[in-house]
Amino acid sequence: MALIILAHPSFSQSLANQTIIQQLQQSSLDIEVRDIHSLYPNYQIDVKAEQEALLRHQTVVFQYPFYWYNMPAILKLWFDTVFTYQFAYGSKGDKLKGKNFIPSFTVGAPESEYTTLGNHHFRVGEFTKSMEQTAYYAQMNYIDPIYFHGTSLAAGYTAEDVKSKARTHAHRLIEKLAALA
Amino acid sequence: MALIILAHPSFSQSLANQTIIQQLQQSSLDIEVRDIHSLYPNYQIDVKAEQEALLRHQTVVFQYPFYWYNMPAILKLWFDTVFTYQFAYGSKGDKLKGKNFIPSFTVGAPESEYTTLGNHHFRVGEFTKSMEQTAYYAQMNYIDPIYFHGTSLAAGYTAEDVKSKARTHAHRLIEKLAALA
Repeated sequence: MALIILAHPSFSQSLANQTIIQQLQQSSLDIEVRDIHSLYPNYQIDVKAEQEALLRHQTVVFQYPFYWYNMPAILKLWFDTVFTYQFAYGSKGDKLKGKNFIPSFTVGAPESEYTTLGNHHFRVGEFTKSMEQTAYYAQMNYIDPIYFHGTSLAAGYTAEDVKSKARTHAHRLIEKLAALA
Repeated sequence: MALIILAHPSFSQSLANQTIIQQLQQSSLDIEVRDIHSLYPNYQIDVKAEQEALLRHQTVVFQYPFYWYNMPAILKLWFDTVFTYQFAYGSKGDKLKGKNFIPSFTVGAPESEYTTLGNHHFRVGEFTKSMEQTAYYAQMNYIDPIYFHGTSLAAGYTAEDVKSKARTHAHRLIEKLAALA
């Protein structure tokens, strides 16, 4: 039912993203997880395999950490190579039409710093418009991102804080996926 | 004086980006061009070499084509790997402080489609905020992007149209660099 494109260059060190993926796998949802950094450590994406995976599902979740206010490079490469002319766009490029597109990400710093006068100056939603318009151009059904702030242990969050927030995040995502099913 | 980070996966096919780089090289400016896709075709960035290049210059220009309303993956990987803790940010991460940061890019479709009711729905400036905040977080001097629309021959632009607009773009960039020198 749902394809999870997991894009995390250090997944084995990520409490937050690991917790979210574990919760999804323990749920009753029918999901396929593709860990694209581990599949393509040399950044040579198998375009045909990825397009075939997309065709198998009605919903696509993009699971990743915010890196420099944007997606990690491996996910950008995935879009650059997999969303091709006459597949994702163009006169015959309707292969993704009507599929659900859900960004699901984690943000290191607290929400209070993602404000005009905060350290990061912009609201998170100001940084996701390229994702949103990518979905529209592929005729997909864009769903507002599911995300949470405060995954940085360096910023003083404890491992239990992070895991607890990640579980809450996963439950919100699971509810959304169940509603779409 | 200025470092040009050229990030184009198909540079040899790009009329617009080739014209801009040629004009820069023919000018009297003292520039260093690093073609990062050609330097790192396997996406294994030499972080030390890139950081040393940054330290040699007061101004950094990022020259790239818009891909899916964002930078190409190779440039995202460059930021993800080169803008490290205690180099670009962190308690001692002030190595880029005060340097000028100039996005310089090309957009395939016409400006009229980058409007709320157009095919691309958002103004170009809505898509560049992750670049802008990256500059701020590295304590760099962000300069508004220099860009132009209409590089797509498929959309009906002629090669001469594109080259002419690229020359105008290059002249604006050269004037800006001369003013900063």
